[in-house]
Amino acid sequence: MAVSSSLVTYAFQGGMSLSKTKTCSKDFMSYSSLCKQSGCLKSLYPRHPRFLPNEKVTKLELTNRSSGKTGILCQALEIENAPSFSVGKKFQLDDVIEAQQFDRDILNAIFEVALDMEKIEKNSPGSQILKGYLMATLFYEPSTRTRLSFESAMKRLGGEVLTTENAREFSSAAKGETLEDTIRTVEGYSDIIVMRHFESGAAKRAAATADIPIINAGDGPGQHPTQALLDVYTIEREIGKLDGITVGLVGDLANGRTVRSLAYLLAKYKDVKIYFVSPDVVKMKDDIKDYLTSKGIEWQESADLMEVASKCDVVYQTRIQRERFGEKIDLYEEARGKYIVDGRVLEVLQKHAVVMHPLPRLDEITVDVDADPRAAYFRQAKNGLYIRMALLKLLLVGW
Amino acid sequence: MAVSSSLVTYAFQGGMSLSKTKTCSKDFMSYSSLCKQSGCLKSLYPRHPRFLPNEKVTKLELTNRSSGKTGILCQALEIENAPSFSVGKKFQLDDVIEAQQFDRDILNAIFEVALDMEKIEKNSPGSQILKGYLMATLFYEPSTRTRLSFESAMKRLGGEVLTTENAREFSSAAKGETLEDTIRTVEGYSDIIVMRHFESGAAKRAAATADIPIINAGDGPGQHPTQALLDVYTIEREIGKLDGITVGLVGDLANGRTVRSLAYLLAKYKDVKIYFVSPDVVKMKDDIKDYLTSKGIEWQESADLMEVASKCDVVYQTRIQRERFGEKIDLYEEARGKYIVDGRVLEVLQKHAVVMHPLPRLDEITVDVDADPRAAYFRQAKNGLYIRMALLKLLLVGW
Amino acid sequence: MAVSSSLVTYAFQGGMSLSKTKTCSKDFMSYSSLCKQSGCLKSLYPRHPRFLPNEKVTKLELTNRSSGKTGILCQALEIENAPSFSVGKKFQLDDVIEAQQFDRDILNAIFEVALDMEKIEKNSPGSQILKGYLMATLFYEPSTRTRLSFESAMKRLGGEVLTTENAREFSSAAKGETLEDTIRTVEGYSDIIVMRHFESGAAKRAAATADIPIINAGDGPGQHPTQALLDVYTIEREIGKLDGITVGLVGDLANGRTVRSLAYLLAKYKDVKIYFVSPDVVKMKDDIKDYLTSKGIEWQESADLMEVASKCDVVYQTRIQRERFGEKIDLYEEARGKYIVDGRVLEVLQKHAVVMHPLPRLDEITVDVDADPRAAYFRQAKNGLYIRMALLKLLLVGW
Repeated sequence: MAVSSSLVTYAFQGGMSLSKTKTCSKDFMSYSSLCKQSGCLKSLYPRHPRFLPNEKVTKLELTNRSSGKTGILCQALEIENAPSFSVGKKFQLDDVIEAQQFDRDILNAIFEVALDMEKIEKNSPGSQILKGYLMATLFYEPSTRTRLSFESAMKRLGGEVLTTENAREFSSAAKGETLEDTIRTVEGYSDIIVMRHFESGAAKRAAATADIPIINAGDGPGQHPTQALLDVYTIEREIGKLDGITVGLVGDLANGRTVRSLAYLLAKYKDVKIYFVSPDVVKMKDDIKDYLTSKGIEWQESADLMEVASKCDVVYQTRIQRERFGEKIDLYEEARGKYIVDGRVLEVLQKHAVVMHPLPRLDEITVDVDADPRAAYFRQAKNGLYIRMALLKLLLVGW
Repeated sequence: MAVSSSLVTYAFQGGMSLSKTKTCSKDFMSYSSLCKQSGCLKSLYPRHPRFLPNEKVTKLELTNRSSGKTGILCQALEIENAPSFSVGKKFQLDDVIEAQQFDRDILNAIFEVALDMEKIEKNSPGSQILKGYLMATLFYEPSTRTRLSFESAMKRLGGEVLTTENAREFSSAAKGETLEDTIRTVEGYSDIIVMRHFESGAAKRAAATADIPIINAGDGPGQHPTQALLDVYTIEREIGKLDGITVGLVGDLANGRTVRSLAYLLAKYKDVKIYFVSPDVVKMKDDIKDYLTSKGIEWQESADLMEVASKCDVVYQTRIQRERFGEKIDLYEEARGKYIVDGRVLEVLQKHAVVMHPLPRLDEITVDVDADPRAAYFRQAKNGLYIRMALLKLLLVGW
Repeated sequence: MAVSSSLVTYAFQGGMSLSKTKTCSKDFMSYSSLCKQSGCLKSLYPRHPRFLPNEKVTKLELTNRSSGKTGILCQALEIENAPSFSVGKKFQLDDVIEAQQFDRDILNAIFEVALDMEKIEKNSPGSQILKGYLMATLFYEPSTRTRLSFESAMKRLGGEVLTTENAREFSSAAKGETLEDTIRTVEGYSDIIVMRHFESGAAKRAAATADIPIINAGDGPGQHPTQALLDVYTIEREIGKLDGITVGLVGDLANGRTVRSLAYLLAKYKDVKIYFVSPDVVKMKDDIKDYLTSKGIEWQESADLMEVASKCDVVYQTRIQRERFGEKIDLYEEARGKYIVDGRVLEVLQKHAVVMHPLPRLDEITVDVDADPRAAYFRQAKNGLYIRMALLKLLLVGW
């Protein structure tokens, strides 16, 4: 339960009931405004007062949303008699905004829940873990694949969904509502918001406004953290480990937020080796390379896909995105055809290795690869369901 | 239950079972056609035969849908041994089409249910009051905010939703289906229809066709009755009373159906005083002014927002709609900047007073106002949820 | 249950549990790939492993998806001790792709289930037959009417729905994903896919790819099998029989897939007589005429709607589709006004006969016909709900 997994738990006699009485709605508002302004006391009230088992118990979260980047939004919190995160495995997940918020312990903890979700999805005739909870999918640009995955996750756990794929209408030219106002309205109708936006940083702005959890389902060129989580989860599920693995990242490494986030997260593990295989025009940028170096991760650029494939545990292929080339169609065509995963690659690929891809794919992996047991990309897509089930559970009902 | 709240309740031995046997579907159709034509006997059958607890009991509604405007669609109906509405507080709500259908007693009765809904929404782990019921949201133009509010209301009560935001497709140029045919089809798939349409009067036409309840979620420049209800409900919740209040209506009073409906409904209460504060080009029209005068409501036009704000219990701000000005951009810009609710207005606003707005807002209320406890507009939006929960409950299962 | 309705049922000790253990997902994939390639052993695993009551029992389906047209996708299968379909009434329905897959016995069996569904829909406060099941509506072109009908069917049985009306986004120009890849992704999120596509044959391709059931909700000019089923079901419900009936097909017989499928299915019954009444430009094509002749079905073309109407049990009117005429507006206008079902037709129509129409209608049936008990078209639309409920039940939980 959320209550038992927060940092410090106090019992206020009657404290909670105040905020729920009909006559003090303004007081409630002023309190919470105060909280937002001061920035130190997130709230005197739990995030999801609707389902509190005991109104007298409430929590005091000592999170500071504006205190820097790493670790703000997701912190390992102690519970009484469980001093260390790595032991007690309890933490309070408030929002899912960016890959950077997760450390190795949190990733492991989430993956354990995801594994439970696999069992739930396969065996039970309809789990009711999230019965009574309502998720709003607020999509400012369509992403049917991502949306369906989240909505399936919610419904597989017995939750309900409010869908909108034309959230831009909220802020249409004629109306001009701010994202913050939209979030304040939609949070009145739901218990959690899954948001897709065209602007980098939009999810963080939403999380700073909302009193309910926000999951970033992609904000422009920025972040797509649930994709990063499912990629790492898939490697662990397929290879059986994350320490000591060799990964080849192939294709558009300059623009693909997927491979950038993956490289970032792999740096949290030991003895990882990364190969970058990409056409010159879309090479991995220096920021990630520098970051890997700073973390002691061995990386190498290569133009020989066959050689890399023969050494890797994971070949992670990506799509060369035509829209990144503008009018330089010839450059696109050249880049596109350069590194294809096909039957020849399979011949050199180790028996235990796998091919991954964030999907959709065009012809950067040929269809004859699909039948090979090492083609992991559809299993990878399915893992997105388990990861999202796990996150929804953690954000809504805790551990 | 619907049965116990109708005007007259008869027990027909076997009468109902006839209409449900498989062989007499044509007889059923001809009966109901007859009913529609004659106009006096709405139906020999209850509206929602699917969930009748007792098939032998049916109701006889003496409503006449074509007998004039006021009171047709929603009438205070006596029940046995409860001669007066104001005593028994029972009535049969068939459809929600326009603000005019509600009188003071009905409003109070709905508000009491809305208050119950606040408790249900906050405390229960998923109410099941409407379990098994299916609401269709038939939106001929997008209105994500309104749709989400209705869908949340239905799901918070355990009901299910069929969504369509492109209902125009039903009547697309190529196909040309009438609204009436669409309604007859959709009512076969659902238990209640929430309809948004671009044409004034569309909801009334739908209600005249359907055998299931219709809720008007806005029909063109016409009506948006659930907005009117939530506005009045918010005033009562915030101020604690409706008699004797002073309300300032600010902004676009010529085109805003919100303020027009609100003024109409406020006329049902005693000792209400209304101030109109608007740029000259969008002044309140004479029909509403004449109506208020005829009801003995004191009203006054003013150009001084500060003075009005100092006197009011409620300052109801609205957006100046650019689309109403066509090419007269200069007039729009002038009108738009004229009356802004900001920190200076807050300074003169009484401590117990509130600022309301139907949302979305642009800059007619500055964001620094949000943190003030007297900023009631997000609570107002949330009240829309409770009002819609109340209406769905009343229309589907009665009192 | 699916298990008991398959052709041959074997018990594998531990066989099933293997495919569910976490470590062998690649083995599972390779097995199923093998199955697809060989074409003979559909799978060693049941289609819906999530809800298997007993993991040790699995089934061996001897279906061959690529062995010709008739009967491939839906076969009457024997069960132990129930040698004949007509006795045991058990068969395994894998997908619903085209009208041709149904024979008379299967139609009768489906209609019996549809009749049960009428009772369920009318009486129960929310059936839970499909609780825990998730249906994805994958619509590559909008068809709100069909989509709402399927979604209502699923929800009336307690199932849940993932909706997408912009499935084209999956395969958008920029992304270019194949239908097969999309299906493989979506089947990971759902238990059954209802698909609408703009290309003939798309549903069959989807079914060949998916391991979960596919229902064709219309694929371009190709098939719309659930419409064909509801038409035949409506005739039986309205007239009480299918053998020995006389049916007049009116309107656009050249392009309407509805009337073509209906003629095809009627050929499965005895002593059926069919009249074709259509403008010259949109006459019934020879393939259907030849087929009817080969099956010994008496058919006749006529230009006299009144005479035909006086002889028929069913007058099946269709819309003349303007889009078929291109720039020949004059031909369209002439064709459109030629055969109208109106009060005069009702005068000669037999008392027990009915008028049907697949909807939407324009003016090919005048609105004054609606009030006549013999106007069956809205009941026909409602029957679509029952047929779809029946198919969803049969595909997901079997008999």
